[in-house]
Amino acid sequence: MSEHIVSSFDAELEGLRSSIAEMGGIAEKQLADAVTALVRRDTSLAQAVIAMDQRLDALQRDVEERAVLTIARRQPLAIDLREVIAAIRISGDLERVGDMSKNCAKRVLAIADGFQAQKIVTGVQNIADLVMEQLKDVLDAYAQHDLARALDVWQRDGQIDALYTSLFRELLTYMMEDPRNISFCAHLLFVAKNVERIGDHATNIAETINYLVTGQNLTAERPKNDRTTAPVDVAAE
Amino acid sequence: MSEHIVSSFDAELEGLRSSIAEMGGIAEKQLADAVTALVRRDTSLAQAVIAMDQRLDALQRDVEERAVLTIARRQPLAIDLREVIAAIRISGDLERVGDMSKNCAKRVLAIADGFQAQKIVTGVQNIADLVMEQLKDVLDAYAQHDLARALDVWQRDGQIDALYTSLFRELLTYMMEDPRNISFCAHLLFVAKNVERIGDHATNIAETINYLVTGQNLTAERPKNDRTTAPVDVAAE
Repeated sequence: MSEHIVSSFDAELEGLRSSIAEMGGIAEKQLADAVTALVRRDTSLAQAVIAMDQRLDALQRDVEERAVLTIARRQPLAIDLREVIAAIRISGDLERVGDMSKNCAKRVLAIADGFQAQKIVTGVQNIADLVMEQLKDVLDAYAQHDLARALDVWQRDGQIDALYTSLFRELLTYMMEDPRNISFCAHLLFVAKNVERIGDHATNIAETINYLVTGQNLTAERPKNDRTTAPVDVAAE
Repeated sequence: MSEHIVSSFDAELEGLRSSIAEMGGIAEKQLADAVTALVRRDTSLAQAVIAMDQRLDALQRDVEERAVLTIARRQPLAIDLREVIAAIRISGDLERVGDMSKNCAKRVLAIADGFQAQKIVTGVQNIADLVMEQLKDVLDAYAQHDLARALDVWQRDGQIDALYTSLFRELLTYMMEDPRNISFCAHLLFVAKNVERIGDHATNIAETINYLVTGQNLTAERPKNDRTTAPVDVAAE
């Protein structure tokens, strides 16, 4: 390859990386704002979270298109090809993280007028704090090609699943205690599930970083402590 | 391009199409079996649905890898490039359809031992019947590059969302009527949501077929009648 082509490839790769960095920033803000909107019952903030998602979708389509063109034009091999494929996969995960946060924001709008015991929201806040940390760490791990940090995120997902399991049961208990909680808690079940799934996307990104750095796919089953689908010992949705 | 290269490209494309046809068949069976497992409370069938998902995941990774190699080797343009990109996108949707069915099967395992009013399951069965028809139609539309049929699927998603909305409220009513329904119905809320989301993936595939045939992306918002996230008029998760 001539230097010109090499530098063009590097420039296209840098462009993909910076688009993903922008997507990561938006996805982090969407989740943080969705939780704030829930806690403060702030419907205009929830609307803003929903609106923010368009930008994320546009960036994901753009990354996908540019990545395909780069593969066709440069025919990259080995680590170079993995860089482009990783960009496609991570942008896909971040786009879906945005969808999950948007879903949470829609639930905030749905329950805005109903009866709401503030204490019930605390459990969702706790799991969201953990997930936001996971998202931040995995995005840093991608920016720095830091495999150890990525694997650390991958390992920690079990804590989130365990927290989700206890939250699921807690919400059912509130429903049984007082029928007025049922509609509100039903929506919170979905908020909690969406937050837990954002954690799953963080671990997907960790797996992509492992593939990017090592060229191997993680074969081991991710540690899962979600037991809402017990009695049998199966991983959660 | 020499005939040799052209025919090699056609062979690779045919290989991608047949892998997607296989994925479609598995995804349809997974959903049908998951619903049967729910209705008959058949936990061994539910386990089989969960096990089936591995094959779908493997096929999706395989399609993605072969598609990327095809783009790098053949540098296809226009319709040829869209064929390869469509294969990547549709395999991604089908892999997620499999995840949704697996989620449903896990819920069947979770509620197997609990109290269960059979009539409550009927609503889930009705929405699943509609979704299975959508899935079948959109897979046929892809196999035949039938744009009209794809757009018909795209239009019909509104019916599924409307059905899901009424089912969501029906399940909340059962919870309020009898606390013994709460745990069972909480799991059914997730089963119904997973089925409704399979319908969304069918419409995603319809959108990909439109892109494949016309080269354009559908810009109009998909018709949405889900109102579980009312009061405001927003689309469902």
